[in-house]
Amino acid sequence: MKILVINSGSSSLKFELIDMTNEKSIAKGLCERIGIANPMISYKNLIKDIKITEQPEPMDDHKMAIDAVLKLLQDDSMGVIKSVDEIDAIGHRVVQGGAYFKDSALVDEKVISLVEELGELAPLHNPAAAMGVRVMMELLPDKKNVVVFDTSFHQTMEPKAYMYAFPYEDYEELKVRKYGAHGTSHRYVSEIAAQMFGKKDSKIIVCHLGNGASITAVKNGKVVDTSMGLTPLAGVMMGTRTGDVDPSAVVYIMEKRGLTPKEMNTRMNKQSGIKGIFGPSSDFRDLAAGVEEGNEKAKLAYEMFCYKIKSYIGAYAAAMNGLDAIAFTGGIGENAFYARRDICRDLTYLGIDLDEEKSSKWLPGNVEITKENSKVKVYKIETAEEIMIARDTYRLTRES
Amino acid sequence: MKILVINSGSSSLKFELIDMTNEKSIAKGLCERIGIANPMISYKNLIKDIKITEQPEPMDDHKMAIDAVLKLLQDDSMGVIKSVDEIDAIGHRVVQGGAYFKDSALVDEKVISLVEELGELAPLHNPAAAMGVRVMMELLPDKKNVVVFDTSFHQTMEPKAYMYAFPYEDYEELKVRKYGAHGTSHRYVSEIAAQMFGKKDSKIIVCHLGNGASITAVKNGKVVDTSMGLTPLAGVMMGTRTGDVDPSAVVYIMEKRGLTPKEMNTRMNKQSGIKGIFGPSSDFRDLAAGVEEGNEKAKLAYEMFCYKIKSYIGAYAAAMNGLDAIAFTGGIGENAFYARRDICRDLTYLGIDLDEEKSSKWLPGNVEITKENSKVKVYKIETAEEIMIARDTYRLTRES
Repeated sequence: MKILVINSGSSSLKFELIDMTNEKSIAKGLCERIGIANPMISYKNLIKDIKITEQPEPMDDHKMAIDAVLKLLQDDSMGVIKSVDEIDAIGHRVVQGGAYFKDSALVDEKVISLVEELGELAPLHNPAAAMGVRVMMELLPDKKNVVVFDTSFHQTMEPKAYMYAFPYEDYEELKVRKYGAHGTSHRYVSEIAAQMFGKKDSKIIVCHLGNGASITAVKNGKVVDTSMGLTPLAGVMMGTRTGDVDPSAVVYIMEKRGLTPKEMNTRMNKQSGIKGIFGPSSDFRDLAAGVEEGNEKAKLAYEMFCYKIKSYIGAYAAAMNGLDAIAFTGGIGENAFYARRDICRDLTYLGIDLDEEKSSKWLPGNVEITKENSKVKVYKIETAEEIMIARDTYRLTRES
Repeated sequence: MKILVINSGSSSLKFELIDMTNEKSIAKGLCERIGIANPMISYKNLIKDIKITEQPEPMDDHKMAIDAVLKLLQDDSMGVIKSVDEIDAIGHRVVQGGAYFKDSALVDEKVISLVEELGELAPLHNPAAAMGVRVMMELLPDKKNVVVFDTSFHQTMEPKAYMYAFPYEDYEELKVRKYGAHGTSHRYVSEIAAQMFGKKDSKIIVCHLGNGASITAVKNGKVVDTSMGLTPLAGVMMGTRTGDVDPSAVVYIMEKRGLTPKEMNTRMNKQSGIKGIFGPSSDFRDLAAGVEEGNEKAKLAYEMFCYKIKSYIGAYAAAMNGLDAIAFTGGIGENAFYARRDICRDLTYLGIDLDEEKSSKWLPGNVEITKENSKVKVYKIETAEEIMIARDTYRLTRES
C-alpha cells in the first residue's frame, strides 16, 4: 500500500512516496529547473536515511522529470521499491478547484479538463498540475490518479463569507469570489486540533503561517471562513505579499506610479509584505534577527504581522460565536514560538491563558502551549499536507 | 454665542447655525448645484419651524452661495439673527487631515495650505473645503475660522494598525497609509457611549452605518483601529462601495474588463456594495423591503453586510483585548433596528445579551438595547457631527 504524492509546478516537481500501512514517508525529493538550463534533482531515501543531489541528463519536460523520479525510486542502491507495481495510486496537489470541487476527485478526462479550465484563476499552478497528471497517466497507465485541491476544504463557506461586494456580474462572468488556499493543511491540522481538544464538534482557528499565510475558522469540522481570497494574496501580511489593503490604494499606487495591472500584481505579491516593510529579506528568521538587533522597520513589520493575525483570530471567533482552540502550523507557526506567544498575548478576553514557559521556547511535535485550565487552548501542530493527499488518494481509489 | 458650521463640497454647501448656550441648531440648510445650471437652496428656521426651498439668482461659485446663506440667516421673516455680529466663529468640516492634524485647528494661512496640499489624498473634498474657508475669510474677515477633520480622531492609531504592507516607499513617497474617516461622528458617539456605560476608561466599538459605513475601536477615549483606510472605500460593505476585497481581485477585474485605474475606482466606489449585489438600489430601506419580499440577492447583500460588521466587531474586540459596549449610529445604525439585532445576534461569547423587545423595534433617542445584566452593552446613539464641529470651534476660538 504505497501512494506517490506529486506536487507539480511550472518548472518544478515535488514528490513523496508514502507507505499507507503506517503513513510514513519512505522517499521524497524535488526536481527543479525543468525545461531550463542546469536542471537538478534532490532525493532522499528515508528508510536508509541517505540523500543525493544530482544534475541529471537533460530534463526538458515533466515527462523526463517523472521518468527520472520513477527510476530513482526503483534504483538498486538508492531506491525504496523493487518495481512500480508497489505504487498503488498517485495523488496530485492542485491549487485551484474553483466551485467545482468540494472534495478530492478520482481523475478522468472530465476532471482534467476542469482542472485546466480553472487555470484561468490559477495560471501559474493549475496547468502545471494538469500536465503532471497527464504525464503520470502516460507513464503508468494502469494506476489511478487522484487530484487533491487546496480549495476544496473551504467549499463549505456560506455565500455571506465567500462573496465580494463587487457588481454581481463579476461573480457570474469572471467567477470572482473567495476560494481560499492551504485547504489540505487546514483540514489536516484542524482534525488533529479537534482530537487534541477532545471534541469533534469544536470551534477551531488554524493559523497556517509560512512564507504564504492563511487563517481559517473551522466549526464542527467545516470551514466557516478563511483569510485568503480569489488568490493567495488576501488576508494577513506575508513574506512578500501585502495581505488585505484598502482596494482603492491599489488603483492609487498604480496611477501614481504608472503601473499596469500585471506590474501592480507583481508589486503586491513579490515586493510587499515583510520584505516590503523590513527591506533586506522576506524570511521570518531574518526578520526576527532584525527585531533582536533593534531595527525599527523589522519591529514595525513584526508588529504588523502579529497584529493582523490577532485581528483575524478575533474576527473568526465572532464568526463562530466563540472559540475552543487556536492551532499554529507552517514554517513560522511551528517554529517561531515568539510569534505564537506575541499573537496570543492580550487575548485573555477570549479565555486564553498562555503557559509562560511552554510558549517561550521551541518545542518538538504537536503540543499545547496554554495552561491546563485555559478555557481556549493554543496548540502547535506540525502540518503534513502530503499525508492528507495520500489519505484522500487511498480513500478515493478504494471507493471506486 | 453662535457658531456657523459649514460643510463645503465641490458643488454643494451644507450649513448649520448652532447656539452654544444650549447646543441647539437654530437654522440649517443646503446649497446645491453651485456653479451648475438650476442651483437650489433649502433652508430651515428651526426656531419657528419654517422651511423654504428656492431657486436663487445665479449661484456661480461658493462666494455667491455663502452670501445667499448669510442673507437668509439675517432675513426679516426667515432669519434667526439680526446681524452677522451674532456669529462668533465658523467651523468647517474637512475630510482629510492626513498625518498633520491630530486635532481640529484654528485657521491661518499655513493651515489652509496644508488642507490644500492634502487635496492629493482627497481630490473631491479638500479643495472645496479650503475654498469654503477662503470665501468665509473674505466675507466675514473679522471672524475666526476653525477646521475640523474627519481623520484627526483616528490619529492615535499605532503604526501596526495604520500601515499597509506595501513597499515602504509607498508610505514615504505617496503617503499611503490608513487615515480613516467619520472621525467626528466616532468621537461624538464614543463619548456618549462612555457616558452611558458610566466609565471614561472603556472599550467601545462604534458602528457608524450610513450610505458610507465605518467601524472604530475606541479604548479609553482613543482610537485603536478603524475600518476605513487611505480612502473611505475600505472596511465594511456599503451602499455602493465594496469595502475590503482581495487586492488582486482589483487588478484581475481591471485586466479582464480592460478598465483604467479611474474606471476601476468608480466601479468599486459607485457600482458595488449593496447596489452591486442587490441591483435595483443602494438604499438600505429598499434592501430591507427586498429581503421582506424574499428577493434572493437582497438576502445575500443583507447577510454580507451584517456578517462583515460582525467580523469587524470581533477583530476590534481582539485589538482591545475585550469589549464594554457597541454603539450603533448613522442613518442605518440609528434606524434599522433589525440590522443592529442581526449583527449582535450570536455574539453571546462576548457577553452580549440582547433585549428581544428593545432590539426588535425602532426607538427614539439614545438607548440601550441589551438586557440590564448584559456584560457587553449595545447602544443606539444619534450622531451629531455638527455639534462636535461647533464645540471644537468654540473651544479653539476661546483658547486663542
